[in-house]
Amino acid sequence: MAAMAALTLARRLLRSGPRPGLSGAGGREPGAAPRRAIGHGRVAVELDGSSGVAVMKMENLPVNSLSLGFLTEFLISLEKLENDRGCKEVVLTSGAPNIFSAGLDITEMCGKSVEHYTEFWRTVQEMWLRLYQSNLVTIAAINGSSPAGGCLMAMSCDYRIMAENPKYGIGLNETQLGIVAPFWFKDTMVNTIGNRATERSLQLGLSYSPAEAHRIGLVDQLVPEEKMQSAAAEVMSQWLAVPAHSQPAELPAGGGGEGPGSDRV
Amino acid sequence: MAAMAALTLARRLLRSGPRPGLSGAGGREPGAAPRRAIGHGRVAVELDGSSGVAVMKMENLPVNSLSLGFLTEFLISLEKLENDRGCKEVVLTSGAPNIFSAGLDITEMCGKSVEHYTEFWRTVQEMWLRLYQSNLVTIAAINGSSPAGGCLMAMSCDYRIMAENPKYGIGLNETQLGIVAPFWFKDTMVNTIGNRATERSLQLGLSYSPAEAHRIGLVDQLVPEEKMQSAAAEVMSQWLAVPAHSQPAELPAGGGGEGPGSDRV
Amino acid sequence: MAAMAALTLARRLLRSGPRPGLSGAGGREPGAAPRRAIGHGRVAVELDGSSGVAVMKMENLPVNSLSLGFLTEFLISLEKLENDRGCKEVVLTSGAPNIFSAGLDITEMCGKSVEHYTEFWRTVQEMWLRLYQSNLVTIAAINGSSPAGGCLMAMSCDYRIMAENPKYGIGLNETQLGIVAPFWFKDTMVNTIGNRATERSLQLGLSYSPAEAHRIGLVDQLVPEEKMQSAAAEVMSQWLAVPAHSQPAELPAGGGGEGPGSDRV
Repeated sequence: MAAMAALTLARRLLRSGPRPGLSGAGGREPGAAPRRAIGHGRVAVELDGSSGVAVMKMENLPVNSLSLGFLTEFLISLEKLENDRGCKEVVLTSGAPNIFSAGLDITEMCGKSVEHYTEFWRTVQEMWLRLYQSNLVTIAAINGSSPAGGCLMAMSCDYRIMAENPKYGIGLNETQLGIVAPFWFKDTMVNTIGNRATERSLQLGLSYSPAEAHRIGLVDQLVPEEKMQSAAAEVMSQWLAVPAHSQPAELPAGGGGEGPGSDRV
Repeated sequence: MAAMAALTLARRLLRSGPRPGLSGAGGREPGAAPRRAIGHGRVAVELDGSSGVAVMKMENLPVNSLSLGFLTEFLISLEKLENDRGCKEVVLTSGAPNIFSAGLDITEMCGKSVEHYTEFWRTVQEMWLRLYQSNLVTIAAINGSSPAGGCLMAMSCDYRIMAENPKYGIGLNETQLGIVAPFWFKDTMVNTIGNRATERSLQLGLSYSPAEAHRIGLVDQLVPEEKMQSAAAEVMSQWLAVPAHSQPAELPAGGGGEGPGSDRV
Repeated sequence: MAAMAALTLARRLLRSGPRPGLSGAGGREPGAAPRRAIGHGRVAVELDGSSGVAVMKMENLPVNSLSLGFLTEFLISLEKLENDRGCKEVVLTSGAPNIFSAGLDITEMCGKSVEHYTEFWRTVQEMWLRLYQSNLVTIAAINGSSPAGGCLMAMSCDYRIMAENPKYGIGLNETQLGIVAPFWFKDTMVNTIGNRATERSLQLGLSYSPAEAHRIGLVDQLVPEEKMQSAAAEVMSQWLAVPAHSQPAELPAGGGGEGPGSDRV
């Protein structure tokens, strides 16, 4: 059964720490037929061909900063999965301890050329568009804190499971640092938790505990940290039971009008 | 008092099962002066002239499938009420056991000509536009399951009361059948329960129990099945107490921009 | 510390009743250096230069009706604060007993010339635009009932604290009087409490108790009436701790598209 295969895979991948050996492109495990490691650089990807479920584990230590280089590796890995007919679902998670992703790498945003800024922001936006509009079912298994761009990444997935550890926080807290969140970060949050809660979040740069995040709908499900694996597997099997071609991508950011994904709804 | 008259009418109509004798056009009850039966075909309509409240009971047995023929009868009945100066409110309910409406008649959507599909979908859309923009107060008394198009019909009313029977379900569950809900089904749901809950609903084709539907705001009020009548009458009297010309129709589908009904707000 | 200074100011101003002596333009208190009274007409304003917090107290007795004259005085006072580099935050409150503002002065809307109506509505809209888009942090300390236009005024602030007195009501209850709320009243409410709750509010002209208003998100915080002062001061200090230039104004009314404030987000 697909769900069982997924469960096994998820258990194995989520349990282990960062495994650089897996993250190189083409680093397949010979003999373990349907399971293939097809990540790129610091993104460890393992696809279970029998269930169609891939686990993408971010391993840009120490905190999965979203640098230009790491985002590029992320995009290549995701594109590989989208082009792989055997892949239907992706679980996005972290191989770094206590953090899902610390968000945009701030060193990419100062002391560089205009060309660099352009390239960096184009790539950030590409990450958002790719995840948000993906044909694959995308599930964020948030096993650590997820501030700013890390929160955007999680919100761009179809479903969010978060570890129930009160030390973890999630939110678009840029305001606290004097950084204005781009309007499409805001639109994505409005689509997730509504207008007023987003206003509050951005005005005060709020970071939510898992319990608060769940209460306002920023994450869909809380699980004890040691049960992330089985929770992800259960969710996956729910999605696999539904005909994929009738599932919409997320509804368009910005609400109301036509936009990304609207032709699929 | 209007509310009392409405109460009596609602009791009588909601209590009885399907009554084909009432559903023919022009099937008036002589001598029962202010009360008039003015339905068409399989839609039994009884208007209480003293309160201005009409009860429209769908009787397309066994499950109130929304076929082209039935939708046409529905539209004629509704138009009659809208043109009747004595009518202010409509309670939409079902004469079929355990089901409000099973949604669009799937046999209208395969093995037919393009002309037929065009005519069918035009009529489905007409039902939505008519109900959603109606000058009358429209209240859905959901006395059974209400999947897919049945859920759209309920959402297009101004207020939704549902029988508290855990066997009943309501939702845009088309996805489960591999059918993509049209964007205006989606917009209507977004307006009712918000963006994120709609995303979840459409991605997994969720059908909600009455309790769940109430929790997420898909229905406004739950009542024990035997109290649908008095609950509907109470709601009606609330609405009758407010000046009709200052009540907006539902806010425009799709949110934000100008749209149906916006000139009334 | 800013918060402490704010606390002291808030205590002093919120405690006192209407003080006409403060409300004249230019009525400064000599010798109390950083604290300046800079209101205009029936709007008493006191700015604490050390914290940057101003308290604007409406004193158009008996019920703070929003007449053309009073709105003009309100706008002049607000503009003064916006042009004052020493001002960062405004607490909007009432000097009238048991009422925040009774809303638009109905005598401005009948028996007058078209020119008068134009001028009146332009000024109402100006109040909304000014408050909604203000560069200052605007906090409504709702110390009494706040129907119709009074509710709009509160919703146009960044944050709403309401006194926990069950006798007070707040809401766009115009419908009850047969008055249609303008679409931008509606849009502002949609942005605050969402589409469906706004539909219900406008269809029935609902007025909410403080507890209900808090439950649906129409106000952000309830406090015992005698603690309005310290609550406002605490909220102010939260806002003062965040870099002002990265705080968005409220998100645009009407949702989705570009609009007032969007360039700041």
